[in-house]
Amino acid sequence: MKHSKVIEVLKSDKLLQPVVVKGWVRSFRNDRFIAINDGSTIHTIQCVLEDDTFDKALTDRITVGAAVTVSGTLVESKGSGQRVEIQANSITIEGDADPEELKLTILSPKKHSLEKLRQQAHLRVRTNTFGAIMRVRSKLSFAIHEYFQKNNFYYVNTPVITGSDAEGAGEAFKVTNFELNKVPTTQEGGIDYSKDFFGRETNLTVSGQLEAETYAMGLGQVYTFGPTFRAENSNTSRHLAEFWMVEPEVAFCDLDGNMDLAEDFIKYVLQYILDNCQDDLEFLEKRLVQEDKSKPQAEREEMLLRDKLKFVLEHNFKRVSYTEAIDILKNSKPNKKKKFKYPINEWGADLQSEHERFLVEKHFKCPVILFDYPAKIKAFYMRLNEDGNTVRAMDILFPGIGEIVGGSQREERLDVLKEKMAALNIPEEELWWYLDTRKFGTCVHSGFGLGFERLVLFVTGMSNIRDVIPYPRTPLNAEF
Amino acid sequence: MKHSKVIEVLKSDKLLQPVVVKGWVRSFRNDRFIAINDGSTIHTIQCVLEDDTFDKALTDRITVGAAVTVSGTLVESKGSGQRVEIQANSITIEGDADPEELKLTILSPKKHSLEKLRQQAHLRVRTNTFGAIMRVRSKLSFAIHEYFQKNNFYYVNTPVITGSDAEGAGEAFKVTNFELNKVPTTQEGGIDYSKDFFGRETNLTVSGQLEAETYAMGLGQVYTFGPTFRAENSNTSRHLAEFWMVEPEVAFCDLDGNMDLAEDFIKYVLQYILDNCQDDLEFLEKRLVQEDKSKPQAEREEMLLRDKLKFVLEHNFKRVSYTEAIDILKNSKPNKKKKFKYPINEWGADLQSEHERFLVEKHFKCPVILFDYPAKIKAFYMRLNEDGNTVRAMDILFPGIGEIVGGSQREERLDVLKEKMAALNIPEEELWWYLDTRKFGTCVHSGFGLGFERLVLFVTGMSNIRDVIPYPRTPLNAEF
Repeated sequence: MKHSKVIEVLKSDKLLQPVVVKGWVRSFRNDRFIAINDGSTIHTIQCVLEDDTFDKALTDRITVGAAVTVSGTLVESKGSGQRVEIQANSITIEGDADPEELKLTILSPKKHSLEKLRQQAHLRVRTNTFGAIMRVRSKLSFAIHEYFQKNNFYYVNTPVITGSDAEGAGEAFKVTNFELNKVPTTQEGGIDYSKDFFGRETNLTVSGQLEAETYAMGLGQVYTFGPTFRAENSNTSRHLAEFWMVEPEVAFCDLDGNMDLAEDFIKYVLQYILDNCQDDLEFLEKRLVQEDKSKPQAEREEMLLRDKLKFVLEHNFKRVSYTEAIDILKNSKPNKKKKFKYPINEWGADLQSEHERFLVEKHFKCPVILFDYPAKIKAFYMRLNEDGNTVRAMDILFPGIGEIVGGSQREERLDVLKEKMAALNIPEEELWWYLDTRKFGTCVHSGFGLGFERLVLFVTGMSNIRDVIPYPRTPLNAEF
Repeated sequence: MKHSKVIEVLKSDKLLQPVVVKGWVRSFRNDRFIAINDGSTIHTIQCVLEDDTFDKALTDRITVGAAVTVSGTLVESKGSGQRVEIQANSITIEGDADPEELKLTILSPKKHSLEKLRQQAHLRVRTNTFGAIMRVRSKLSFAIHEYFQKNNFYYVNTPVITGSDAEGAGEAFKVTNFELNKVPTTQEGGIDYSKDFFGRETNLTVSGQLEAETYAMGLGQVYTFGPTFRAENSNTSRHLAEFWMVEPEVAFCDLDGNMDLAEDFIKYVLQYILDNCQDDLEFLEKRLVQEDKSKPQAEREEMLLRDKLKFVLEHNFKRVSYTEAIDILKNSKPNKKKKFKYPINEWGADLQSEHERFLVEKHFKCPVILFDYPAKIKAFYMRLNEDGNTVRAMDILFPGIGEIVGGSQREERLDVLKEKMAALNIPEEELWWYLDTRKFGTCVHSGFGLGFERLVLFVTGMSNIRDVIPYPRTPLNAEF
C-alpha cells in the first residue's frame, strides 16, 4: 500500500480505513504514543501502539530521530491536541538513530542556540523552527514566480559567470580554472587571462540588471530570480556573500510605475503566505512571543508576526522624496540630541541604517519608499532628473529589515548615459552591448532588485539572515 | 491613458474604443502599415495611418527597430492576416533606430545565421525565433515550479559556492577573492586558503544533490532549480559551462518511484507548454519545416514539433535494464557491421551517445529509461543492488537530445556508503555532514537531475544548446 503524507492524513476523513505513513520519530511517550513528522507539515501524526502488540526489541528502537514506517487504521483521537490518530498494526524501523550519538547533535530534544543550529545546518531543517522557515521560503519563491507569470512577465536566467564588472566595484568574486599556484603571466608581467577557461577575466555576478535590461527591450517585461554574490567582508546579521535576488525590469515604465509594481508585488506575495502557510506562521509567531519574554519590554515586538504582515497589506507604502526625508531627519529629535552616529547636516548625505530605521520605525511607522536620491550617491545607470542633481532612484525600507528593495528608472538617453560612464571611468568597450539598447529603439524603462532573504526574514520574523537560507555563505564560512 | 500589451489587444473585443500600445517597429509598409511587437507575444499589432494625417518628419522616423507609442481606435481589420488593427490617431517616437547603424546588426530585416545571432546575443531576443524560445523557456520554468509545488515538494536553494568537490572530479570552477598574481602561500609552499574569503578552497557547484539529500531527510520531498557549472572543455552543441538544473530528491522513494516521478513530471511540463505556448510552438514548428527544406531527405525530422511533444505525452517511456540494452546493442546491425565508433563487446561498457541514439531513435523509437547500470561506471552514492555489480541508477534518453535525466536510488546504508567512499578515496571528513544523514534515521531515498536547457532544446526543436539560454557560457566565451 502506498504511503500518505502526514499533511494529508491530518486532513483526511477516511476514518476506520487503513493508512501508512513514513517519517521520523519526534517523540515516543509511555511506550505507546509515537509522534511522527515527515516534513510535509509542521504537525506530527500520533501513532498509538496497543499494549503488548509489539516486541520490546522493536519498541526499543523507536527513538527520537529514527525513520519509521507505520501501518494502521485512521481513527478519531481520544486525546486532545489532534483530531485523528493512527492505531498502529505494524511498525518497521527504516533507519535507527542511536540515542547516544544523537545526544551530540541538535536533534536531541532540548533547546539549542541558533548559533549551534548553524553549525549543524545539515540537520537543522529537521527542527520545527527550520522546517517552518524553509517551507515558508519555498512558498514565497513560488508566490514570486506566480505573481510575475500571472502578470505576463517572462523569467530570464541572466548569467552567473560574467565578464563585466561595471557594477562590481571590486566586490565581485573571481571565477577561474587556473591552478592558483600556477597562474600564467604575460610578457608584461600581468595575468594571462587568454589562457583561462573563458579567455578573459570572469567574476560572479553582483546583479543581473544590465542583462535583464537587454531582455526587457525584447520581451517587454522580464524578471530574474537567481543567486547573486558579493565578496563584501561584512559579518552582519543582514549580509550574505551568496544570496538570491529578484530583479524585474519593465520597458515603457517610469519610476511611478516601478513603485506601483514593487508595492503590488510585495503585497501579493505576503497575502500568498498568509493564505498558504498558516500553520508555519502560527508556529513562528508563537516562537517570537516566547523569545520576546526573555527581552526587556522596550525591545519586544509591538505587533504579532501575522499582524505585522497584515499591517503591511492594509497600508499604502509612504512615498517620500530624499529631500523631504533629509528635512525630517535634520529636524528629528535624535539628530538634534546628537543620538545619530552619523549626524544629518546637509542635503547629499548617504542615509545610514540608523536613519532608515528612524524614518520607518519611529516617524512614519509603515513601509517607506524613498525616491529621487542625489545622483552622486547612486549608480551610473539611473535616470537623471531635470534638476541635474537627483536621479530617479527608489529604495523601499521595511520595519526591522531596512532596505528590502532598491530600484530606479534607467537612463534611456544614450548621450547622458555615455557622459555618466565617462565621468565614472567606466569603459564603453566593456558595456558596448548595454549601450546598444539605447541606440536601437531606446525607451523609458525601470526595474528593481529585491533581496529575497531579507523578505524571508521579514515574513518569518527571524533576525539573522543566516537562518533563512539553507547553507549560508559568509566570510570564513562555506561549510557543507 | 494606460497602454495595453499587444497580446491583450489582439484578443480584445472592445471595438471602436480607444487603445494605446507601446513597442518596437517590425515593419512599415507603404507609409501606412506599422507592425508593432512588444515582446508579450510573437504576433504584431497592425497600426494603420490615414493618409496625410502625419508629418513626413515623423513618418521618416518610423523605421525598423524604433520604439513607438501609438494611440488610436481598435477596429476590425480590413486586411487578411489579423482580426483587429489600430487606426492611429497619434504616434510618438520613443527611441529612434538609425537604419544605417541598424543595418550592421542582426535587427536588420534579412536572414542571419544562428552563429551571427549568438555574437549579438543582447539583440537576438528581439527576433521572432529568440522571442519564441525565451517565452517558451520562461513558461517551462514556471511549469517545473508548479508541478513540484502542486505535489507538495519544497524548493531548496542549495549553495552555488561550495567547499566540497566530492562530485567535481576536477571539473569545478574555482571561486576566490585572491588577487591572482598575489596568491598567498603557506610555509610549505602550498596555497594558503586560510587567507581567502571563505578561509578554504571553494568551487562552483556541479550539483546540488548532496545538499538536497540532507533537506529531503527533513522536508520529505524537495527540489532544486538553479545554475550549475562544469569547467569541461567540450565545445559541443549539447554542453554549457553554466547551465540550469532541476534536482528533485524524495525520502522513502525507491528507483521505481523515481522513474514514475520523472516520467510524470516531464509529461506535465510538456502538456503545460502545449496548452500555454501555442503561438510560439506554431512558429517554431514552421521554422523547423523551413529549415528542413534545405536538408537532404534522410536528415529531415520525421515528425512535426508539436506532434513530437504529443508523441512523448501519449507513450509510456520504455524501461530497459542496462543488461538488456547491452544485449540489444551487441546484436544490433550497426554493431555487427562495425558502424559504431565504440563497438559494444561486453557487459560493463559505458554507453556513448551513438548507442543511446540507436536505442532511442532506431530501436525503441520512444523515450527510454535505462536502469541498473554497472556500479563501476556510476557515482559513489548510488545504491548497490543485491548482485553486488550494479547500482540503482537510471538515465532517461530522449530522441535527438540523448540523456535528459540522470538519477538514482541513493545508498542509504552507512557501512556500504563508507566502503564505497574509501574505495574511491573520497575522504569522510569532507562529507561528514552527508554521512550524518545515514546515521540518524536513514531511509530509502531517490532523486534525479534534469538538464533544463536540454529540455528547452527538445521543446523548441532547436539543435544548439547555445540558442536556448540568454547568454551562453562555453570555452573561451563569456561575453556580455
